Amino acid sequence: MTHKVKAWQNVTTFPLPGRQEKPRKEGLTMVMDKGLGLNATRDLLETAAPYIDFIKLGFGTSALVNEDLLRDKIRLVRSYNIDIYPGGTFLEVASIQGRTGEYLAYAKEIGFTCLEVSDGTIRMDWETRASLIAAAREYGFDIITEVGKKDPRDQIPTREIIEQVKADLACGASRVILEGRETGKGIGLFGPDGSVKHDELSEILAYIEDISAIIWEAPLKSQQQELIIRCGPNVNLGNIAPTEILALESLRVGLRGDTLRFALQPK
Amino acid sequence: MTHKVKAWQNVTTFPLPGRQEKPRKEGLTMVMDKGLGLNATRDLLETAAPYIDFIKLGFGTSALVNEDLLRDKIRLVRSYNIDIYPGGTFLEVASIQGRTGEYLAYAKEIGFTCLEVSDGTIRMDWETRASLIAAAREYGFDIITEVGKKDPRDQIPTREIIEQVKADLACGASRVILEGRETGKGIGLFGPDGSVKHDELSEILAYIEDISAIIWEAPLKSQQQELIIRCGPNVNLGNIAPTEILALESLRVGLRGDTLRFALQPK
Amino acid sequence: MTHKVKAWQNVTTFPLPGRQEKPRKEGLTMVMDKGLGLNATRDLLETAAPYIDFIKLGFGTSALVNEDLLRDKIRLVRSYNIDIYPGGTFLEVASIQGRTGEYLAYAKEIGFTCLEVSDGTIRMDWETRASLIAAAREYGFDIITEVGKKDPRDQIPTREIIEQVKADLACGASRVILEGRETGKGIGLFGPDGSVKHDELSEILAYIEDISAIIWEAPLKSQQQELIIRCGPNVNLGNIAPTEILALESLRVGLRGDTLRFALQPK
Repeated sequence: MTHKVKAWQNVTTFPLPGRQEKPRKEGLTMVMDKGLGLNATRDLLETAAPYIDFIKLGFGTSALVNEDLLRDKIRLVRSYNIDIYPGGTFLEVASIQGRTGEYLAYAKEIGFTCLEVSDGTIRMDWETRASLIAAAREYGFDIITEVGKKDPRDQIPTREIIEQVKADLACGASRVILEGRETGKGIGLFGPDGSVKHDELSEILAYIEDISAIIWEAPLKSQQQELIIRCGPNVNLGNIAPTEILALESLRVGLRGDTLRFALQPK
Repeated sequence: MTHKVKAWQNVTTFPLPGRQEKPRKEGLTMVMDKGLGLNATRDLLETAAPYIDFIKLGFGTSALVNEDLLRDKIRLVRSYNIDIYPGGTFLEVASIQGRTGEYLAYAKEIGFTCLEVSDGTIRMDWETRASLIAAAREYGFDIITEVGKKDPRDQIPTREIIEQVKADLACGASRVILEGRETGKGIGLFGPDGSVKHDELSEILAYIEDISAIIWEAPLKSQQQELIIRCGPNVNLGNIAPTEILALESLRVGLRGDTLRFALQPK
Repeated sequence: MTHKVKAWQNVTTFPLPGRQEKPRKEGLTMVMDKGLGLNATRDLLETAAPYIDFIKLGFGTSALVNEDLLRDKIRLVRSYNIDIYPGGTFLEVASIQGRTGEYLAYAKEIGFTCLEVSDGTIRMDWETRASLIAAAREYGFDIITEVGKKDPRDQIPTREIIEQVKADLACGASRVILEGRETGKGIGLFGPDGSVKHDELSEILAYIEDISAIIWEAPLKSQQQELIIRCGPNVNLGNIAPTEILALESLRVGLRGDTLRFALQPK
């Protein structure tokens, strides 16, 4: 499937320069899909495929959908060369039930290309995590790990987050997602109102060498805007609602007020 | 229409056990539909029909849609054996205009299977309510009444709510909805920030014998989560957005962090 | 395309009378479209075309979509006699890049029927604005200007807003939009929580003679409700989400609790 976006390109240039096109190694966008049907999935791909790198079927939703439909949807997404994977919570469930082998085999057979390894809800010791990453890589999955706890009562100090990011990458993960949940509020890098905690952000940026290995879950526009202004248009962003993909891409290239204003400032 | 969800069932079991499948008498989910077109309705049904028991066409929206389209949509929803009904406000309007006879006849003819009898906005004395329920039952409708006022200035004491629930059931209603509106904030059981009022909830749970007769309008995830943890996976929930049906079902079965955490706690 | 809504019209009358039907000069509704695909666009038009006067392709999203798809979408919207235009920020970008000529030519060629002239993010002197309006009118576009700044730090005194509205109309604009952004919070007429600033609203209503020339960006239901109660069912409203068009129309005609309550009050 090709997607030519030549329309306006003889008219204007993007105010924020440098946005990478596919195939790209940074500037990734991950969609949080909570159950799009085939009509909506087609709409999403036809309008926005060049701006989507991963589609995550949130939580355990892929366990609830008709199997034939799930196969059709995975095939459709794959026809656009976009990676697709089930939510990490689902693998956490398989892990505590001692069924990771069956889980990996089935995920492979049904067509998923990526897997998220997380401990957002369960406790998982480091050896289990490492062996899970290794086992999933054996199956040929691209591995994205997630660092962070879903419950506000369990939050991890920034220094530990940094350590775990490094350990995961050393262990074979391609990328590490920083937990932001669907709301982006009172979780990880974000205060109760969704505002970015600047000290924590600076600490992570200072201590992680290759920032392109991180995918920031940033569901709110204010968060996306701040990360783009801070890290540039090719920051990796996740948990983006399907309805927000073009709006986010407008932010990335400076075709929306908030980042256009930034692009116009004297540097 | 059948909908086999066998995909993952050899892989894991649901962390929160006991979720009832269709046909079921409790664990009902009611969707708040504000005007889905046929493509979106098909998507919703294909992905989530096993998790939907009622579709409510919110407010007076069904009065605004092209008649042929409305008939097609009702037929489509009915082909999945899902009940469908117009918002209660619409019948309130017919009632104050002295047109309930015409309303009931037309609702029947066009294919609705349920009716909501409410006084969320108008004043309706008990005799009128009772005779409206009786008249609608004559037409063969399944009757859901709603208890609660839409305006924060008109809120009803919990004890009165309980009395009205009992009276409605005695009078022929199959279920009673507790008003939560579309926002779930500053209304009925919910504080201005959407938090559940625990005392009021406990009072209702203590005094209503058959809790499966109640449908809780709970549009926010935090509310759904709290009601599931408190009342179990088969609590009846309403005013769920179409985009949230699979997310809610994930909550019900423990495939989402918030209820998975609960399922894993030592009891 | 015709859209007969006769279904319920023999049953009830609308509690808030006077709503104008198409073709109409006031009571306009403008949809904020952030990237609907063709399936969703068809759904929107089939369910709600009689209640939509303009579709705005928000921000620079129309620059990001495949050109063939964009042409198909514009053609589809036009087949319902609904006006369609790209977001104002996009023309601001062309303006600062000295490419307004190319922009106007391309917008015309691709099928847009309206243009929004704004300075929500850039600085534009009055002569530039006036000549831009004139140039766009030369191309046959219907001109909607926008007054207001997107950044909370740049807000304009109400008296200046009024002056600019008058100047724009004198200069050839058909309508003037008052900036409310997508959120409706902390911008223009709206406080940080989205509440309407009554003094500012009263001042605008007092000093603008023909209030039908104004389109109020009012994305939140509470704002729509307040403007309908204050200005009547035929107030022009903009930045309405596609999912909210029938809900808004229910508000306009009194088929939703909030305005039904108002309609029933003794006057």
